[in-house]
Amino acid sequence: MSDLKSKILEMAAEDLAAIEDELKANLTPYLDIVSEAAGHILFSGGKRIRPLLLVLCARLCSYSDNYDKTFSVVFEYMHAASLLHDDVVDGATLRRGKPVANAIFGNAPAVLVGDYLLSRSVSIASKANQVEVFKELGKITEDMSQGELHQLIRKGCIDLSEEEYMEVIRRKTATLIQGACRIGAMIAHAPDEKRAALSDFGLHLGLAFQMADDLLDYTSDTTVLGKEVGADLREGKVTLPLIHALKKASISDLRQMKAIIQNTDFSLQDFEDLKGLLETYGGITYTQALAADHVARAKEALTIFSPSETRDLLSLLAEYTLARKV
Amino acid sequence: MSDLKSKILEMAAEDLAAIEDELKANLTPYLDIVSEAAGHILFSGGKRIRPLLLVLCARLCSYSDNYDKTFSVVFEYMHAASLLHDDVVDGATLRRGKPVANAIFGNAPAVLVGDYLLSRSVSIASKANQVEVFKELGKITEDMSQGELHQLIRKGCIDLSEEEYMEVIRRKTATLIQGACRIGAMIAHAPDEKRAALSDFGLHLGLAFQMADDLLDYTSDTTVLGKEVGADLREGKVTLPLIHALKKASISDLRQMKAIIQNTDFSLQDFEDLKGLLETYGGITYTQALAADHVARAKEALTIFSPSETRDLLSLLAEYTLARKV
Repeated sequence: MSDLKSKILEMAAEDLAAIEDELKANLTPYLDIVSEAAGHILFSGGKRIRPLLLVLCARLCSYSDNYDKTFSVVFEYMHAASLLHDDVVDGATLRRGKPVANAIFGNAPAVLVGDYLLSRSVSIASKANQVEVFKELGKITEDMSQGELHQLIRKGCIDLSEEEYMEVIRRKTATLIQGACRIGAMIAHAPDEKRAALSDFGLHLGLAFQMADDLLDYTSDTTVLGKEVGADLREGKVTLPLIHALKKASISDLRQMKAIIQNTDFSLQDFEDLKGLLETYGGITYTQALAADHVARAKEALTIFSPSETRDLLSLLAEYTLARKV
Repeated sequence: MSDLKSKILEMAAEDLAAIEDELKANLTPYLDIVSEAAGHILFSGGKRIRPLLLVLCARLCSYSDNYDKTFSVVFEYMHAASLLHDDVVDGATLRRGKPVANAIFGNAPAVLVGDYLLSRSVSIASKANQVEVFKELGKITEDMSQGELHQLIRKGCIDLSEEEYMEVIRRKTATLIQGACRIGAMIAHAPDEKRAALSDFGLHLGLAFQMADDLLDYTSDTTVLGKEVGADLREGKVTLPLIHALKKASISDLRQMKAIIQNTDFSLQDFEDLKGLLETYGGITYTQALAADHVARAKEALTIFSPSETRDLLSLLAEYTLARKV
């Protein structure tokens, strides 16, 4: 484990344990299949970054009630629901080293258990007694479903621009992380300035998080990643390392890259060749640099808060988005 | 058109037109595929019974604001979302005489557009500024997803009891209708007694509505129904007419019924034979009588309100659940 990761886990140990308890306590279905399928996705090594961010952002805004850990569950349930639906949509096979829920339980239960988790989120969130929270949650889930759809209809399209890519990852990934941070400030009844700062923090962290995730498809290996390397590409997902390299490539390299991308049954050698071209044209380093810039902007957003252990931990979490291997 | 239906349409004309406008105005996606897939399910001859019930129940409780029509959209969007997901789950082919959305757009967009409609519901509902509404909406959607799952895992099980059937239809169908009525009272800030009465009204109407729907699978024909007659049975849905007949049947008739139910590829003659047995053992009349009883209980619940045109219309809507052919 990296030093950064162990430091974060040490600093967040108590919060993470409390979040884990709440994740179990708040599921409350009456059907066993819901416990099983929801449990499969919820208790399979998730990093709990979203609920942790909510708890920390609320604390940074001097939250004084005792509902934060319970409330934080909303963001992990929403995340799990989107993973259940996305795995049905994407036809992926592995997640976190295990078969996806729809491969075990079938597509139909995966869809309905996702719906159940979304519903639980609404129920749990309603205990916070703030209507404005629902305005945010509504917007977040609108963004998530449309971002995922946007990605879906543009699968395999090599004319995807960097701008369009950024819009897709903002909606499908960053919005939920941003929402966890912003709503953390909201449940602490923080003033607008702090809400905006934590909203910015979450947005940039979320964008960096997804860029790093997209890089892992090219830079990790299957054992460490827990899903097939190259799986995104095989699903036709055109991500930033590729978009950048496509823009820079010579005509003959462009032709080779197109051929590999449009062949969903590409070989391991094809994939290695493609990775070589991404290196050649700077697609990897460009994405790394842009992600690092978003991490810097996330950390910058925290500077309106006085120094504290909570602020330090939030900074480390932002840094970790780039350091992670999984 | 029956006299009852034309009377209802006449009395509700203005409300239905306003609801239709709001259904269009509040969709607001940025992706065309969302407009298309959501439009396919939303504007294909739905009866708008849920939004109409909300508007009428609010009015019966002297609602004085001007947000009721917009708010009512929540219940049609939620309903459409559940239809989109259910059609993916059930593998049905026709709905209201048209191919199901997933057959046209694919399962993945159907799932995600359903998610989008649920999200829009949360956004629209948040404008009502009542947290208690979200407690209800959370419970409603939890019930709906679990009811649908319950039905799914018990498909083809001929040991389904009447009690279990009632529990499934309460969750998957009646809860949303009940919720529209109850929340209608809530947004009118009605006292508990009126909320409870309209909640009862909606529950019984909803139960009768689903029983009538289940009867149509045996008593209608494909042209009128807009979906294949016998489709429920082919999907393995064991409904009340069947449950009752199975309980009463002789050993040899029971054997024949089981054979037809468990053969998903049954012939038209098999289906006619089964219908004959449902008649013989009173499955149809039993279900009709029970549904009529629930309609009576729904109407009874309205008696705490003074007579009015709105109350009359709600009564007629309860009666219509039994009279409808589609």
